[in-house]
Amino acid sequence: MNSFGRIFRVSIFGESHGECVGINIDGCPAGLPLDLDDFSIDIDRRKAGAKGTTPRKEADIPRIMNGVFNGKTTGAPVTILFDNTNTRSGDYEKQRAVPRPGHADFVASKKFGGYEDFRGGGHFSGRLTVCLVAAGVIAKKLLDNIKVEAAILEIGGEVDPEKGLQNAIDAKDTVGGIVECRVKGLPIGLGEPFFDSAEALISHAVFSIPAVRGIEFGTGFSAAKMFGSDHNDWIESMDGKTASNHAGGIVGGITNGNELVFRIAIKPTSSTPKIQQTINVETGLVEDFSVKGRHDLCIALRVPVVLEAVTAFVLADLMLLEQQISRTIK
Amino acid sequence: MNSFGRIFRVSIFGESHGECVGINIDGCPAGLPLDLDDFSIDIDRRKAGAKGTTPRKEADIPRIMNGVFNGKTTGAPVTILFDNTNTRSGDYEKQRAVPRPGHADFVASKKFGGYEDFRGGGHFSGRLTVCLVAAGVIAKKLLDNIKVEAAILEIGGEVDPEKGLQNAIDAKDTVGGIVECRVKGLPIGLGEPFFDSAEALISHAVFSIPAVRGIEFGTGFSAAKMFGSDHNDWIESMDGKTASNHAGGIVGGITNGNELVFRIAIKPTSSTPKIQQTINVETGLVEDFSVKGRHDLCIALRVPVVLEAVTAFVLADLMLLEQQISRTIK
Amino acid sequence: MNSFGRIFRVSIFGESHGECVGINIDGCPAGLPLDLDDFSIDIDRRKAGAKGTTPRKEADIPRIMNGVFNGKTTGAPVTILFDNTNTRSGDYEKQRAVPRPGHADFVASKKFGGYEDFRGGGHFSGRLTVCLVAAGVIAKKLLDNIKVEAAILEIGGEVDPEKGLQNAIDAKDTVGGIVECRVKGLPIGLGEPFFDSAEALISHAVFSIPAVRGIEFGTGFSAAKMFGSDHNDWIESMDGKTASNHAGGIVGGITNGNELVFRIAIKPTSSTPKIQQTINVETGLVEDFSVKGRHDLCIALRVPVVLEAVTAFVLADLMLLEQQISRTIK
Amino acid sequence: MNSFGRIFRVSIFGESHGECVGINIDGCPAGLPLDLDDFSIDIDRRKAGAKGTTPRKEADIPRIMNGVFNGKTTGAPVTILFDNTNTRSGDYEKQRAVPRPGHADFVASKKFGGYEDFRGGGHFSGRLTVCLVAAGVIAKKLLDNIKVEAAILEIGGEVDPEKGLQNAIDAKDTVGGIVECRVKGLPIGLGEPFFDSAEALISHAVFSIPAVRGIEFGTGFSAAKMFGSDHNDWIESMDGKTASNHAGGIVGGITNGNELVFRIAIKPTSSTPKIQQTINVETGLVEDFSVKGRHDLCIALRVPVVLEAVTAFVLADLMLLEQQISRTIK
Repeated sequence: MNSFGRIFRVSIFGESHGECVGINIDGCPAGLPLDLDDFSIDIDRRKAGAKGTTPRKEADIPRIMNGVFNGKTTGAPVTILFDNTNTRSGDYEKQRAVPRPGHADFVASKKFGGYEDFRGGGHFSGRLTVCLVAAGVIAKKLLDNIKVEAAILEIGGEVDPEKGLQNAIDAKDTVGGIVECRVKGLPIGLGEPFFDSAEALISHAVFSIPAVRGIEFGTGFSAAKMFGSDHNDWIESMDGKTASNHAGGIVGGITNGNELVFRIAIKPTSSTPKIQQTINVETGLVEDFSVKGRHDLCIALRVPVVLEAVTAFVLADLMLLEQQISRTIK
Repeated sequence: MNSFGRIFRVSIFGESHGECVGINIDGCPAGLPLDLDDFSIDIDRRKAGAKGTTPRKEADIPRIMNGVFNGKTTGAPVTILFDNTNTRSGDYEKQRAVPRPGHADFVASKKFGGYEDFRGGGHFSGRLTVCLVAAGVIAKKLLDNIKVEAAILEIGGEVDPEKGLQNAIDAKDTVGGIVECRVKGLPIGLGEPFFDSAEALISHAVFSIPAVRGIEFGTGFSAAKMFGSDHNDWIESMDGKTASNHAGGIVGGITNGNELVFRIAIKPTSSTPKIQQTINVETGLVEDFSVKGRHDLCIALRVPVVLEAVTAFVLADLMLLEQQISRTIK
Repeated sequence: MNSFGRIFRVSIFGESHGECVGINIDGCPAGLPLDLDDFSIDIDRRKAGAKGTTPRKEADIPRIMNGVFNGKTTGAPVTILFDNTNTRSGDYEKQRAVPRPGHADFVASKKFGGYEDFRGGGHFSGRLTVCLVAAGVIAKKLLDNIKVEAAILEIGGEVDPEKGLQNAIDAKDTVGGIVECRVKGLPIGLGEPFFDSAEALISHAVFSIPAVRGIEFGTGFSAAKMFGSDHNDWIESMDGKTASNHAGGIVGGITNGNELVFRIAIKPTSSTPKIQQTINVETGLVEDFSVKGRHDLCIALRVPVVLEAVTAFVLADLMLLEQQISRTIK
Repeated sequence: MNSFGRIFRVSIFGESHGECVGINIDGCPAGLPLDLDDFSIDIDRRKAGAKGTTPRKEADIPRIMNGVFNGKTTGAPVTILFDNTNTRSGDYEKQRAVPRPGHADFVASKKFGGYEDFRGGGHFSGRLTVCLVAAGVIAKKLLDNIKVEAAILEIGGEVDPEKGLQNAIDAKDTVGGIVECRVKGLPIGLGEPFFDSAEALISHAVFSIPAVRGIEFGTGFSAAKMFGSDHNDWIESMDGKTASNHAGGIVGGITNGNELVFRIAIKPTSSTPKIQQTINVETGLVEDFSVKGRHDLCIALRVPVVLEAVTAFVLADLMLLEQQISRTIK
């Protein structure tokens, strides 16, 4: 449930305001060079602090606990922890009677009988995405010569992110966005019929990222409006390169050697400064509600590196399954 | 790979022009009444024959081979076969040198070293969706008092399906569409953090349906353009009912007791009557190509019952995991 | 539950007196030559008919339904059925109130709420081992240059099987035995820490064979009486060959390049002709009971080929995982 | 690979001389009271220090990092770390050229390309069994009213452990033993046909414990010498209680409501003080070898609590699957 992958298996654990969050990677090939510096760029990309992101700042220095020896992976599970240092739990405890709209508060309480760690979203917090990023760093290193790159396409409906963000700031509200991921250099043949198609596995992993509301591959929803002769990608060369790429690099669930392209929709941050209404589960009455705590105005801004990460570990797993990555790095 | 589900586990097998296609369901609770009549409505809904669908007609009478005794499931695996009776393999053998654009022909040949059964798409054929429908029939029976219903929203960009279809007929081309699925009566609490959120599992299963290019939950891609205060669903009652349903019934990856709503995009049928170009893998030259065989003008027309089916078996599995369905039906 | 294996995944289904029993193999590499003749030797070895085995004889001709095309595996799931032609269900129905000692009758009825197919042991029948043998045939073909061979060591405590069997015949009773399996030619490195050691996976699969009561590797239980200096196998050459083989070819859960050796204990056939006592679940009274139906005097006699089969498919899966077998046979 | 279980899923990580060893438990029901004191008895039972055990002593205080809040499990993954404080790695580095007979040194080096953490057996060390014990503590708490108890049956072939141990001390050698596990209070119906029988799952988990060479249920290997009429357990009451218990509480792979009984064989500790021979992988020459480092004279002495632990978590998983344990503790 908190694990994903068949050979390169990523398990995630931790809570927003607990001692730490962390990740365990089983099946990581032995012999991959790995040190703390490898993580710094991607972890910095995810970090808060830019306009529109939460003022909560964590040091986010990965603690590699296991599976690395003499600077290389050993083949045993790799465990990485991130300490939670900057927590202000008091912000959350009083809110408990009033589940925040758009958050997991209400469903978590029902599902886990009220035993869930409710501080800062607990195990449901976006804080855990730092773990995904760490797994992604390792996966990217395995994906030698394959480039996984995600970028913001839209914020609040605006192709200029700054403008979409400014609209939200002006409205004293929060806003969503669209993020696109592109992968160059994939071999033909990744993905397994019938249920483990490349799209199926990628979308499975992608919907683990908090706030994702949709995913589309290639032309995606627009494909539904096209004629077949316009949508089909003509194969032009013996290595499978196509004249167009409406399929987004996957046909029949299998990568076709063209660029992998897909987009995801990120909902506006649920913790808006606006006054809302929600039920007080102690009184049973609907009451006014305003968010406390430090939050992102637009969580989409921090998503690209997370999206790259989950994409990378899905692909690393498929590469291992297809024997395109060796279980021991030479 | 060809299996899906943790307790209610569906495995699919077969090829379009082989002897049969079939499904095996492990973990089906014992004591569920099941006979051939249970299948007829949904299998008829999937059947070809209406305007826009292939003239290939299969009898599609399920053969229940195992797991049912005295009219009820036994708790042992349920195996159901569908004979392939109406095959014309000659249509396909000559086409082999010329992989069809938009189909899995090329990638399958590369992935499986040329050993794949290439007749009619083989294991990649939409023919296998009859198996999904059969699994869905059983899952729906388990989902007592829960209604899973899918319907066409658009064909070729037209909300009137007949019009979208007529556009394609007039253009002598094929066309895609959008299908929406709604589920009423779900309990709060289905879905597991972190990787097995309700959206993650549904999308995983949904992308196994051939021709799906995208999926979105609730307001989906439109959410990316909304402000948080507009998107949030205010909780109005102690049972979690919300004033709006932009989330589509899932928050934090967990069902929230409201209606589950999601949409999928279906690409236009790849086998268009139009002349296209593709490479001849024997000569290495690009050549003109026209589709042979019997095909759907708009595969989206047949998708709703398939979408209901995969949705139903994902939900049945989650209900079993959450102990909301007993492993023996009383 | 009815599936085993991570890449080469074997799923089993069927009942003793239903229409058929069968097997589905997912993840079988493409390009493996396979025809009916491949199965005949091993299926004949398992067949009844020799002294001490049941007079029930099945044709046991495998019906390859899927996954093979032009005489080779395609990479899609391989489904094989065996029809049940020689069933006499009347023998069993009257016995239902009186669960047979040593059989699953009582527990199956409790577990599955009375809905189980109780005829001839239903899904619990040794009949299903023909499916294991079929999976083993395919696995053995994948294990090129690796020989998997099992043989009877003892019947009823006698190293001369004929003598042990005669003792049982004279006593008008049934008898058990010990079967040893040896595998030559394995590479170093199969098995995964921590939970998927070679012994763990083999024993998991072996205990699926009905009537197995124990398993030991190398010197096994005798090792518990030895001193460490006597038990340790001294490594004598750079390829890991050891002077002795008390470990049975596995150290630390990983194959060490020496012969794999293990033994299993098979209990005496539960269906003995002797008068026994058991409860009548309708009356609640203990009553005399004598077995009806056709049964093996010594099921151990038929076990060697089944043991080879499960061993072979465990090893094939590990070889695929370790990338020692290609996913497409060249 | 380093995970086990379908709902209550235990993942293990760490190395003998790394920073820590640890365990992650996914699928643990919410609401289970858990504090440090719960662990002390079982961790003390496993600890070294008694006659025949290693002088290496670890504090072994569990650090509960995640999944517990306000003294109860939350339903999120439970992560527990054990710091490695008492390591003397220098003992091992010089030995690397000379793989120790009976240890994983040689196979680990081959399997992981020389990248493995070789200090003190690394990930293959018995040190990791402290993690199993921790998982067992939690599982036992879930198994309310079910008693899991293991005890030494023999040391070095002597039923008086002290005598067997003294024989080894006198011989300046190491020795093995036999450990028996008994479980009272299990319901009828645990275990799943065909591959996940109760024996299959227990043996799978048991062979993860280092040094196990065999397992037998009920009368085990002795059953192979018995007649059927002697071996069968007559059912005497409506709740399935049997007059004898040769089956050890499992029939047809399913628990039958009688006491679960099985035994395991533990090999003598490989690290014997005696002079042995092994190859020097740098020179290719066989040379004399004597063990350095601190070791157990008889590892079997420390196994009972570990055996209880793995048994408990297998049974907890089966109880959850059979819906006999609720996913939220009331």
